[in-house]
Amino acid sequence: MTEENYLCPGERIDDLERSGLKIIQDPGKFCFGMDAVLLSGFAMADKGERAIDLGTGTGIIPILMSAKTKCESFIGLEIQKESADMADRSVRMNGLEKKISIDCCDFRDAPDKFGKGSFDVVTSNPPYIKDMCGLSNPNDAKKIARHEIYGSLEDLIRTSADLLKNGGRAYFVHRPSRLAEIFYYMRYYKLEPKRMRMVYPFIDREPNMVLIEGRRGAGTEIRIEKPLIIYGGDGKYTDEIYDIYGY
Amino acid sequence: MTEENYLCPGERIDDLERSGLKIIQDPGKFCFGMDAVLLSGFAMADKGERAIDLGTGTGIIPILMSAKTKCESFIGLEIQKESADMADRSVRMNGLEKKISIDCCDFRDAPDKFGKGSFDVVTSNPPYIKDMCGLSNPNDAKKIARHEIYGSLEDLIRTSADLLKNGGRAYFVHRPSRLAEIFYYMRYYKLEPKRMRMVYPFIDREPNMVLIEGRRGAGTEIRIEKPLIIYGGDGKYTDEIYDIYGY
Repeated sequence: MTEENYLCPGERIDDLERSGLKIIQDPGKFCFGMDAVLLSGFAMADKGERAIDLGTGTGIIPILMSAKTKCESFIGLEIQKESADMADRSVRMNGLEKKISIDCCDFRDAPDKFGKGSFDVVTSNPPYIKDMCGLSNPNDAKKIARHEIYGSLEDLIRTSADLLKNGGRAYFVHRPSRLAEIFYYMRYYKLEPKRMRMVYPFIDREPNMVLIEGRRGAGTEIRIEKPLIIYGGDGKYTDEIYDIYGY
Repeated sequence: MTEENYLCPGERIDDLERSGLKIIQDPGKFCFGMDAVLLSGFAMADKGERAIDLGTGTGIIPILMSAKTKCESFIGLEIQKESADMADRSVRMNGLEKKISIDCCDFRDAPDKFGKGSFDVVTSNPPYIKDMCGLSNPNDAKKIARHEIYGSLEDLIRTSADLLKNGGRAYFVHRPSRLAEIFYYMRYYKLEPKRMRMVYPFIDREPNMVLIEGRRGAGTEIRIEKPLIIYGGDGKYTDEIYDIYGY
């Protein structure tokens, strides 16, 4: 079966520049961003561990993590049927169906469906926008990916904590403006923030992303890592960004 | 009266390089650090506002803020009698007694003493260390300044919230490792984190300080500022640090 057989109208295949992996995307709906790539570089998952990605979209995070880590068991949850179907075709196109399974459901149902405390690793690149104003079409795929329509930030953190065994890790990428809420809910649901990295577009600009690791049931004190700078003074990606992208 | 008349044995006078201000310090006890200077540059206080500094030590924060802001009303609280006395002498030596008053008391008693909701601004450069192990001499001035002996982080945040009117601001400098606890308690006590700046010694190193502004009763969403880098590649202070120090 050729790669084109995996495509639906409007979709395209992008090269992930990593272990020969490719991904199906629909530019009319939602394409993955640098956020997902940075999260897949920040998150850690070991051989023998079970990982689950909440709101997997194109499936980018489990697909990249299947190459970047030794973990061999990923579930990608996606509530939008078309996106879940597309992610599933990407998994099969890459021959990763033994490692990754895509499941179309509401992430809030995951603890009942898969069992509380049944995962070592949770990842999520969730919608960033809380404000629901001005949503003309709540069924729009892009809006669902960007706005907290199916589950709030608190739902995400509570569900992540429920899914993890004691000592299990959650990895999130989010907007820095939500940081206080994120830390508050993480502590509240016993998913202690243990590691954080700020992502600054340039060294002299405000950060536009933050990467966070929490550990279920852990004690206090967080390690803040060195800044991750996206662009150098020459306007090109810094070496570290090239490294994460795998060029 | 000459400046030397303000000194006790073992003390010295340091030039603050700002509006001709000087400060009395005792190197055998505790000298102010860059933390206090950065906080006095990060905090804002306007004319007509009332400010209070919790655990003022040498009085460095109100003394610097009296020059850096238009605020004319500062109280510095200090539980250690010798430090409070030294801070009071620095205030008088600088002729600032109309703007700054030093009060020797436990900051946890401040809401009863001065009234709840009676301040526009709270500042604090508190002890950073939670762990009380290995404290051979809990009366040691340096240890009191560094360890949470007289009041925990939670006490500090709750008291700050109690002291502020609605809309009033609190400014803290702390270790990044305590960030999750700080944000948690701030939200818990309705002192919403609204602004934060990470201080990195070098651009490629972990941060060693964090500056935080909270606002009493405010809504969610925090603004994270561009990184504050202390040393440039040449090992010298960056221009911004020189600027904050007022050189």
